[in-house]
Amino acid sequence: MEASLASAFGLGAVVCTTLAYVPQVLKAWRTRSTGDVSLGMFLFMVVGMTCWLIYGLLIGDVPLIVANALTLTLATIILVLKLRHG
Amino acid sequence: MEASLASAFGLGAVVCTTLAYVPQVLKAWRTRSTGDVSLGMFLFMVVGMTCWLIYGLLIGDVPLIVANALTLTLATIILVLKLRHG
Repeated sequence: MEASLASAFGLGAVVCTTLAYVPQVLKAWRTRSTGDVSLGMFLFMVVGMTCWLIYGLLIGDVPLIVANALTLTLATIILVLKLRHG
Repeated sequence: MEASLASAFGLGAVVCTTLAYVPQVLKAWRTRSTGDVSLGMFLFMVVGMTCWLIYGLLIGDVPLIVANALTLTLATIILVLKLRHG
């Protein structure tokens, strides 16, 4: 019972923190305005997620690899839009 | 050897993805301008990190609890600044 409750929260956590980047990608893409978005935040995120991805590959953890490949892609798009639009 | 390499990437991942929120908090706090920051992103983040925190508490994982308590605090500050400044 407690294990399945924990799994439900774990799944909700992964889904929410992964999907979270989508509205920021869409907003930055649509408005082409990223002045209030922190460059430092997405630089750290891209480096950190790359580390997560390498960590997942080294320990062979498929959910970690999939989740971080997805968030790394989304965070990289935001970083590129930030670098382009300032 | 490979285990310690994995640990190094895991540590780098946690440090970077946790610290990442700091420059966005500072930027939003200083400029009081959050128009380009996505409300949806930080709403999803706060819900997702709350799920991570509950998951950590349920499975009794201290690093997960500490890391998510910290990022949840930072993401909540960004969300409050976004709600205040629009």
